Amino acid sequence: MSNIINCNYTAASLYDFVLSVQRKEPIVQCITNFVTVNDCANILLAIGASPTMSQSPLDADDVVERVDALVCNLGALDKLEVMKLAGRRANEVGKPSVLDPIGAGGSLKRRALISELVSEVSFDVIRGNASEIRALAFGAQEATGGVDVLAKDKITDKNLSEYVKMIKSASERLGAVVVITGETDLVSDGKNVAAIRNGCSTMSKITGSGCMLTALTGAFCGASGGDFFGAACAATAVMGIAGELADVRRTENGTGNATFRNDLIDAVFNLTEEQFKERIKYEIFKG
Amino acid sequence: MSNIINCNYTAASLYDFVLSVQRKEPIVQCITNFVTVNDCANILLAIGASPTMSQSPLDADDVVERVDALVCNLGALDKLEVMKLAGRRANEVGKPSVLDPIGAGGSLKRRALISELVSEVSFDVIRGNASEIRALAFGAQEATGGVDVLAKDKITDKNLSEYVKMIKSASERLGAVVVITGETDLVSDGKNVAAIRNGCSTMSKITGSGCMLTALTGAFCGASGGDFFGAACAATAVMGIAGELADVRRTENGTGNATFRNDLIDAVFNLTEEQFKERIKYEIFKG
Amino acid sequence: MSNIINCNYTAASLYDFVLSVQRKEPIVQCITNFVTVNDCANILLAIGASPTMSQSPLDADDVVERVDALVCNLGALDKLEVMKLAGRRANEVGKPSVLDPIGAGGSLKRRALISELVSEVSFDVIRGNASEIRALAFGAQEATGGVDVLAKDKITDKNLSEYVKMIKSASERLGAVVVITGETDLVSDGKNVAAIRNGCSTMSKITGSGCMLTALTGAFCGASGGDFFGAACAATAVMGIAGELADVRRTENGTGNATFRNDLIDAVFNLTEEQFKERIKYEIFKG
Repeated sequence: MSNIINCNYTAASLYDFVLSVQRKEPIVQCITNFVTVNDCANILLAIGASPTMSQSPLDADDVVERVDALVCNLGALDKLEVMKLAGRRANEVGKPSVLDPIGAGGSLKRRALISELVSEVSFDVIRGNASEIRALAFGAQEATGGVDVLAKDKITDKNLSEYVKMIKSASERLGAVVVITGETDLVSDGKNVAAIRNGCSTMSKITGSGCMLTALTGAFCGASGGDFFGAACAATAVMGIAGELADVRRTENGTGNATFRNDLIDAVFNLTEEQFKERIKYEIFKG
Repeated sequence: MSNIINCNYTAASLYDFVLSVQRKEPIVQCITNFVTVNDCANILLAIGASPTMSQSPLDADDVVERVDALVCNLGALDKLEVMKLAGRRANEVGKPSVLDPIGAGGSLKRRALISELVSEVSFDVIRGNASEIRALAFGAQEATGGVDVLAKDKITDKNLSEYVKMIKSASERLGAVVVITGETDLVSDGKNVAAIRNGCSTMSKITGSGCMLTALTGAFCGASGGDFFGAACAATAVMGIAGELADVRRTENGTGNATFRNDLIDAVFNLTEEQFKERIKYEIFKG
Repeated sequence: MSNIINCNYTAASLYDFVLSVQRKEPIVQCITNFVTVNDCANILLAIGASPTMSQSPLDADDVVERVDALVCNLGALDKLEVMKLAGRRANEVGKPSVLDPIGAGGSLKRRALISELVSEVSFDVIRGNASEIRALAFGAQEATGGVDVLAKDKITDKNLSEYVKMIKSASERLGAVVVITGETDLVSDGKNVAAIRNGCSTMSKITGSGCMLTALTGAFCGASGGDFFGAACAATAVMGIAGELADVRRTENGTGNATFRNDLIDAVFNLTEEQFKERIKYEIFKG
């Protein structure tokens, strides 16, 4: 059930982004990490997109011309040069590009490398956890060590208004739609902020929840006709709803995180309009 | 139920290739892409083969001497030099080698690189979709952008006779048994052509159906005693039948593409002689 | 039911290692191969640890300072230099490190490279099959071709006493706790030897059983407070018990090796104290 305060994006209009993906079957080129690449490809197929994980320096830029969106996932830090190559070409030929600055909060070296990429390539959407976005947008000095969010960076109802300000500012600084995922997910285009309250805690017990959402966001952008804020909101809601549906199955079947991963992708594959409209929980703070 | 027009390969004789794999437990060295490598290893284990994904330039040629078959999958375009190294050694020491020219239809750069490999290494079997095989054998100029087959390259009952000619010609040109997968799968040794009508459409909704078949083909060749046409037919039938069995489970359980992937590998693991003989649908056009 | 001959490690004290992991949520950095990396990450999450697969030469040493344990898996032979870099730093800053010398029994080139790593980095735990450990510790000359154990290297009840001597000697030579996995798993610190009799044969029908155990061992070491022998025993028991539980599900549900892999990780996710204490089967031969 939607919980809309003030918004032009109805649940129905957000579901239209799903239909657009299914109609267009966008080709999404992912330059992504080897940990979750298979899950990213399968979730793209589940939503109706066509993945290509082509990321050789030999033809990554050649490929980008024939796809509908580019996704760069910094889990593949060694592919930085390929990302620059493909990203610049995407900018030149006007293809939407999405960045996952994974680990930007992890080490200072890594953050510097990611900042370099962001200065060379103009990304349309950047999705990360609060620590990653904070580090990238504001150069926060704390390092997390790993890929997880710092405890102090968790979005709660108490600090929501603070985060609404933060994400708007981050979006302005980065010149991109920004998505911060956490217990509550936030999306901002620098003016408007959507708070999406789908998902479940089991999503943090598998690797790839974030990467898969980033890949989905690429598909939604590639079929969006240019409304990247709406596309990012819809992708984020789909991911959260699929997580909820998978968690129902996990509880019913007494399974664990590995089966949950499959159930989540399956839930995207089988997602119905009814499920989407009944389950989506969001509000939009207009700028 | 088999539907044999004119053929020395009975369903029973094709099933013998499965038994050979189970008896010999061939070691299959796969130089393959990072997207589907785990699935390729698990499907090799499911059929009774022993996978080694060794593909370091440091010892790939050293390893090839001790395995039963080599599989080169061009999803790993950056491993081209390793493939040449291992492929040449496989040729020297007489080990069967199988090529998956994935994306040969995708970009012109990529096609040129794959052609270079094919000119240096003599492959026993080459498996791809119709766009890939057409590009590799005849230098077709259209690029697909991604890894999927062009609409005009889909094999249907209407254009089957045209494709029978095409695959024979491709096999002659490439000097290899050629497998073209699609709704109908074709296998040719340049003289004979087998049309195999197993499989299901869900196979195109997961990543790795093609890669897994190529890996299986390596296992079947490695245990075949040199009959690569029969080995390729048997591997193709096993993959299609496993897809059908997995799709039955998907429909029964209301699952999606991720669980389908596991069910497909499980179906290979549990494949019985009865399932194989009852489900195989093929005809052979003798040369 | 435990079958303890002479031992300070009760089932309860071994289960305490599980509780320590759950309490500490150690960050485990894995420099590991692309075949099973996703499974390694998910099994670390299943036990309650936090995986980081960071292995870029650009920041691998930077990351190691902020994690609780380092795991080096030689399936990623091309990452040898990164392993040296991260391993030396782990030694300097006193972080536990675990080695999986996968394929050490496979090719002589590979063995030489692994020996080089072991001479530069001091590992706390080394886990492999008997062929790998024999090759690494004693320079055995036979090559296996693949990644599997040689038939003559299988641990049976008949040759157990011989292997107890062998592993003690290997542990002394390598200066590390050594884990040899097989039908019976052995763990030694050079003085004591534990024989753990959990697990099932289906574990050898998936790729990654060994890699996942090595990753788990990293998590247990990272939360162990320095008792690496106990940590390795507990990790080995957890893996074997999870395999048994997954095999029960496989038999009940008529599934195969792919679903078994998920069930195994799920079993770690859902492991209870009761399951652990009821199922663990081990004996310890004190030095």
